[in-house]
Amino acid sequence: VAKAVKSSRTTLKRLPEKARTDVATLHAVLDAGLIAHVGVMDHGQPIVIPVGYARAQDSILIHGSAASRLFKLLDSGSPACVTVTILDGLVLARSLFESSMNYRSAIIFGTATRISGAAELDALKVITEHLMPGRWDHARQPSPKELKATMTLSLPLTEYSVKLSEGPPGDADEDLESDAGKAIWAGHIPIYEQLGVPIPDQFVPQGTPVPDYVTHWTR
Amino acid sequence: VAKAVKSSRTTLKRLPEKARTDVATLHAVLDAGLIAHVGVMDHGQPIVIPVGYARAQDSILIHGSAASRLFKLLDSGSPACVTVTILDGLVLARSLFESSMNYRSAIIFGTATRISGAAELDALKVITEHLMPGRWDHARQPSPKELKATMTLSLPLTEYSVKLSEGPPGDADEDLESDAGKAIWAGHIPIYEQLGVPIPDQFVPQGTPVPDYVTHWTR
Repeated sequence: VAKAVKSSRTTLKRLPEKARTDVATLHAVLDAGLIAHVGVMDHGQPIVIPVGYARAQDSILIHGSAASRLFKLLDSGSPACVTVTILDGLVLARSLFESSMNYRSAIIFGTATRISGAAELDALKVITEHLMPGRWDHARQPSPKELKATMTLSLPLTEYSVKLSEGPPGDADEDLESDAGKAIWAGHIPIYEQLGVPIPDQFVPQGTPVPDYVTHWTR
Repeated sequence: VAKAVKSSRTTLKRLPEKARTDVATLHAVLDAGLIAHVGVMDHGQPIVIPVGYARAQDSILIHGSAASRLFKLLDSGSPACVTVTILDGLVLARSLFESSMNYRSAIIFGTATRISGAAELDALKVITEHLMPGRWDHARQPSPKELKATMTLSLPLTEYSVKLSEGPPGDADEDLESDAGKAIWAGHIPIYEQLGVPIPDQFVPQGTPVPDYVTHWTR
């Protein structure tokens, strides 16, 4: 039984068999996702907001509007939780109690640090290249005015928990052995993300091919 | 410009053109998702955890282990935020500043109420039928012991915000008119979830067909 023990709040008390502690697994989960859900307190009320992100070595990078409440709160040093979840499937156990979903999730606790100057451009490139590989060099890069309107933040990957739930259901023996249980189909159904065909906007001249680096993207 | 004004904390100060106030849109977003990210405070630290959910009329239902920290905190009346995000695509603007993602998101603020007795079974059925339509009647329903280990909670859909971001990028005029901008391919790439082929577990007799109600599931 692995335990993702980094502190009492990242000790998985429930379902510890799903917990992973190794940093390679954390990195793999973060590198597979596109959206993180960031939680922070706002006058006694938690708010949870989806943001694009990327991992850079041992930190997670997010960016958003410098005028947004979420980013102002994060920048003020408010404790944050950044959660990345990738839904991998439905798990149909014979009992509804054991029925669940397969997923990979990473939960990171920490306080954000603002990135500025040349390091901000580097961080924005990492985020762009994670979400849209190859795009950084093929789109117009941020102007000073745009950079001023953007806030780029980093959280260290020091306090975290990672959970993986995969494969078939874990039915209780009674459900596997009873006639009623044996009559129930059980298994799992994978869920995966797919990219559709790129749709040029109205200003792209007809017949312009989709750039190579875009056609190579997969999920 | 629509504004999702239900209180100061659900007033969208950023990108108000993406905001929707109508309850039909809220319901549509909630009905399209499978996983919600629930945020709650735990001794001064926000925690954000993914959970399966369903909508029942004007409330959102979640269930989990009665022993879990998240559910204990919710049950204690801690203010909560429940966020559902459906990622719909990548948006490639000519400028990286305007590049983004298409998505539908619903953010609900409130305090959870525990559901018990016969109403809990009804609520669990609603959750099951949202995540796995038809499964309630074809799997083994919860025993009293299993119900005791389960906590089922409801949050009212009274304070919320909904955001929809869809379609092509919104490049600035300068990027549409400059030669450099005109040379950049721009558009959007849909992302959608797909279900894979159901995989029976090792205890299902070979040749057993996948149940009809399962084969009809789509994402």
